[in-house]
Amino acid sequence: MTEKIILDCDPGHDDAIAMMLALASSELEVLGVTVVYGNVSLDRTLRNACVVREVVGRDVEIYAGVDRPLVRERVSAEAVHGASGLEGPHLPTPSRGPEAKHAVHFIIEQVLAHPGEVTLVPTGSLTNVALAMRLEPRIVPALRRIVLMGGSLDTGNWSPAAEFNILCDPHAARVVFESGVPLVMFGLNLTHQTPAVPSRIARFRALNTQVGEFTAQLLEFFRQHHVERYGWDGAPIHDACAIAYLLKPELFTMQALNVEIETNEGLNYGRTVGDVWRVTGKAPNCEAGIRIDADGFYDLLVERLGRYR
Amino acid sequence: MTEKIILDCDPGHDDAIAMMLALASSELEVLGVTVVYGNVSLDRTLRNACVVREVVGRDVEIYAGVDRPLVRERVSAEAVHGASGLEGPHLPTPSRGPEAKHAVHFIIEQVLAHPGEVTLVPTGSLTNVALAMRLEPRIVPALRRIVLMGGSLDTGNWSPAAEFNILCDPHAARVVFESGVPLVMFGLNLTHQTPAVPSRIARFRALNTQVGEFTAQLLEFFRQHHVERYGWDGAPIHDACAIAYLLKPELFTMQALNVEIETNEGLNYGRTVGDVWRVTGKAPNCEAGIRIDADGFYDLLVERLGRYR
Amino acid sequence: MTEKIILDCDPGHDDAIAMMLALASSELEVLGVTVVYGNVSLDRTLRNACVVREVVGRDVEIYAGVDRPLVRERVSAEAVHGASGLEGPHLPTPSRGPEAKHAVHFIIEQVLAHPGEVTLVPTGSLTNVALAMRLEPRIVPALRRIVLMGGSLDTGNWSPAAEFNILCDPHAARVVFESGVPLVMFGLNLTHQTPAVPSRIARFRALNTQVGEFTAQLLEFFRQHHVERYGWDGAPIHDACAIAYLLKPELFTMQALNVEIETNEGLNYGRTVGDVWRVTGKAPNCEAGIRIDADGFYDLLVERLGRYR
Amino acid sequence: MTEKIILDCDPGHDDAIAMMLALASSELEVLGVTVVYGNVSLDRTLRNACVVREVVGRDVEIYAGVDRPLVRERVSAEAVHGASGLEGPHLPTPSRGPEAKHAVHFIIEQVLAHPGEVTLVPTGSLTNVALAMRLEPRIVPALRRIVLMGGSLDTGNWSPAAEFNILCDPHAARVVFESGVPLVMFGLNLTHQTPAVPSRIARFRALNTQVGEFTAQLLEFFRQHHVERYGWDGAPIHDACAIAYLLKPELFTMQALNVEIETNEGLNYGRTVGDVWRVTGKAPNCEAGIRIDADGFYDLLVERLGRYR
Repeated sequence: MTEKIILDCDPGHDDAIAMMLALASSELEVLGVTVVYGNVSLDRTLRNACVVREVVGRDVEIYAGVDRPLVRERVSAEAVHGASGLEGPHLPTPSRGPEAKHAVHFIIEQVLAHPGEVTLVPTGSLTNVALAMRLEPRIVPALRRIVLMGGSLDTGNWSPAAEFNILCDPHAARVVFESGVPLVMFGLNLTHQTPAVPSRIARFRALNTQVGEFTAQLLEFFRQHHVERYGWDGAPIHDACAIAYLLKPELFTMQALNVEIETNEGLNYGRTVGDVWRVTGKAPNCEAGIRIDADGFYDLLVERLGRYR
Repeated sequence: MTEKIILDCDPGHDDAIAMMLALASSELEVLGVTVVYGNVSLDRTLRNACVVREVVGRDVEIYAGVDRPLVRERVSAEAVHGASGLEGPHLPTPSRGPEAKHAVHFIIEQVLAHPGEVTLVPTGSLTNVALAMRLEPRIVPALRRIVLMGGSLDTGNWSPAAEFNILCDPHAARVVFESGVPLVMFGLNLTHQTPAVPSRIARFRALNTQVGEFTAQLLEFFRQHHVERYGWDGAPIHDACAIAYLLKPELFTMQALNVEIETNEGLNYGRTVGDVWRVTGKAPNCEAGIRIDADGFYDLLVERLGRYR
Repeated sequence: MTEKIILDCDPGHDDAIAMMLALASSELEVLGVTVVYGNVSLDRTLRNACVVREVVGRDVEIYAGVDRPLVRERVSAEAVHGASGLEGPHLPTPSRGPEAKHAVHFIIEQVLAHPGEVTLVPTGSLTNVALAMRLEPRIVPALRRIVLMGGSLDTGNWSPAAEFNILCDPHAARVVFESGVPLVMFGLNLTHQTPAVPSRIARFRALNTQVGEFTAQLLEFFRQHHVERYGWDGAPIHDACAIAYLLKPELFTMQALNVEIETNEGLNYGRTVGDVWRVTGKAPNCEAGIRIDADGFYDLLVERLGRYR
Repeated sequence: MTEKIILDCDPGHDDAIAMMLALASSELEVLGVTVVYGNVSLDRTLRNACVVREVVGRDVEIYAGVDRPLVRERVSAEAVHGASGLEGPHLPTPSRGPEAKHAVHFIIEQVLAHPGEVTLVPTGSLTNVALAMRLEPRIVPALRRIVLMGGSLDTGNWSPAAEFNILCDPHAARVVFESGVPLVMFGLNLTHQTPAVPSRIARFRALNTQVGEFTAQLLEFFRQHHVERYGWDGAPIHDACAIAYLLKPELFTMQALNVEIETNEGLNYGRTVGDVWRVTGKAPNCEAGIRIDADGFYDLLVERLGRYR
């Protein structure tokens, strides 16, 4: 039994690896890849998704989504991902572009076509998802679940309080977290446990494949930013955690908790407020990743990306 | 030369009168009526739009829009408009229902089909409009203008600070007010100048027509709430001001000013903050109604509604 | 029977006139003048209070209060009042300085010494008053009332939403408005009805006294700012309204209403939110000035300032 | 060389232990104990401070401070500390009461009398300290440092985001954190590392002294709440960490960082926002405790409390 997923992403180095991991995994039926503005502008995240498809040589449809947040002004992360959003390796010119249909319509159509079967995997800002929920509320009960990378149960990265994906569109995040759809969240508190240190990067290179080399070069560029910015020895592969969870949930320690999104502007704008000690009496609305077996995660990544020959 | 409009409303007593005024006026080509949740739930506002079409016997398409705000929870105003949203007169059973297409798609399609020609006239919460702008950003430069009822330059009505339409969906309002589309706003500061006192209601009854009587009965019910709630002698016909402006702008005194929407929760949630004294240095983003010739407004209403025979 | 008052001010042109009006009026026993930072820095507002005492030649004690707001950073209004805070006339060098005691202690001591008898008249930011209330809560039930200039029931002046005195220290204002002390508020909605147009300024000059000339010169400078800034023909004498109310309440139309202070930062920071339509169900906590007989106000001012010979 | 301290507290079980630790330690010259409302109402925290003085039999002056927060309404923690605020052991009737002078005045007087020498150790809400800073700004540069228990770099306890002491008075906390006084902060992220599990409680009982038994009984009561509330095996002795740091800083791992206080109401009201990754570019304003040698901490506590014979 495969799990039908739609990967909603803004590649981005770690989105690219998440996409490659998903497309290499036969447990997942990737209905399509929907793209959102985010790490860089929509035209670039869209092109990057096509580039990744080109690199892995798999047949998957790609859909362009929205180009800006629901309410607030757009922020972006060229400082982290470079001008193209995928700096590091040589990027081939995609031989195929995105489909004509809007990502929001694709999501609505697929979810309604497969009620109770589709898992959304957002690894960027949640604008496409929120827009789909408002345009067609019937997708809310029809979704199987949402497994996302975003937020943090400890510190932020784009502000002291907020993680980039959620800060990009706190209002969309609030729509998703208040939707009632079963939610699985991997925040920085978890993803920071997965630094791609040189020895781990070396494992991708040692695959001795085009995809292995592409991944190694992505991670080398991404690592450099984190060495300079945080003093770490490697960059976390945030987004791939969400896909890894679909493949090997036993790598993860999870906690059910209530998470609310701060939409008031100020110091905590875009913070995911997790009620870790159940102070509020509110029922949990998500399973949040607490710990990951990072070595097992890299074993999985290397094995799966190694399937691309 | 007629002006192409889409009336985006949530009938509601005053929306109903706005709709009747628009459909009676040959200066306006009503491309369609789009409906949003608001005064009451979407199923009722939608039915009420069909009821009004039935009463006036005109051929206009009606489209169902969204059923809840972009981000916040829904509030509604049964206390003002009664359970049906149109209490007072006998409501005929509509012989025709709404079109199948979603209001947001209708708005997008029409605006793109007539670039620079379509005026949106929202008289309810701005959720349909904001959603359309985010789903298809190309409508923003393609719109001729937005002429809306909402907000206030002095006091609110649903909270001390905020007017109902804007408070229903402050985030959507912010999208619209920050969009750059030429904006005309009629807030409570203006609409409160138009109480339907008994002598004015009598003029509709004196038309001795079905529409005249229907209007009189709408206003009698609506008036009663305002007598009890505010101690006024009549209810303002808020929404009809927006249509009246399209027909006879000379009835209005306008001021260009910058208006921002408070989206932070608290005392001022949903307030339209008008920079009346140009304190901020920000350029005006709307023309706001300051004064209305109320007698001229009623003359117009009576004359136009009198056209329904 | 005289009314014991403490004038808590930050002169400032209109504070100066309020102080002169109070000291000229035998109905009021001015226990002391307490000074707060505000229009300009504390050292200057303090000096200006001493200057005004020098000009009128009355014996009143002046006390220095706090030099900054309770919580937020200080803002000031040199743009309106000039560098000294009292630009316009020649300012004599004060022959006497302030007392050694802190204004907050003076307020506490006087209020406790005359339980139920002291009226506080704040015409600047409310920091001294709030600090006194927190340091000695027993003054709260012991105060007769607080009659203040601050806030607005319509538009702001220092931001689109907020009036200067309240914006200077919204937190202190909240303490005062939530204290339960009987409150009388004169906001911009009222004080803007009192422009010192040239014909009114001429009446002070026509007194042919030192104080009359001093007042005329104050108002000429103050007017110039308002001509340029607002396009008005004169400057409102905001602060003197509070004193005038103590002398001739019949000049004023008042409304009992609940007023809350916005302390969340953002567009409405420091706004006085008046529940004009009793939406909240909260009991009134103040009497707010709605209309003033401006001619009667100037008659009073001219007559009283004319007593200084 | 002793360090002059003023302990500003709201006993409270852990405050009581902090006070006993301070008074047992010859490295510290406790100029006085100032008391603030907090865990319970001021009359009870004040009485509890006197009770602790009675139990340890040391000569120290106790001063009553303010009875409510600067701006917001009071919250309290009877649920944690019991009705008296010090439930558990038998509480002797104090033979001596507080001094007449207000705590705020005592703080001001002592700090100005010993410029550069006084360390404030607040273990409750920061209202006394903030009020002193506003009433007499000269204490700010005259303070040696402030070493406080409050806030959290990870989760809150009184809300998902905020720790009790800071949430009690976020505005006072903001005054203190923005003051520029050298600041040392021990938040829940650190204090939660110090659970008084049964084996640790047993060490106090094994002292076989009145103070040892009193402490054991305090901790047994305090533990029970934490067992039920958090599922932990012991209660953290939060406040004693601040005193322990003065005595044995080598027990602590510290990080310099910028901390800001959320004063906007909402999900994060009262949160201490620590810029752990230096995202803001703002200079550190405090040293925050990151890790504590908990066994060393208990060794210190047992040894010091063992000095009371």
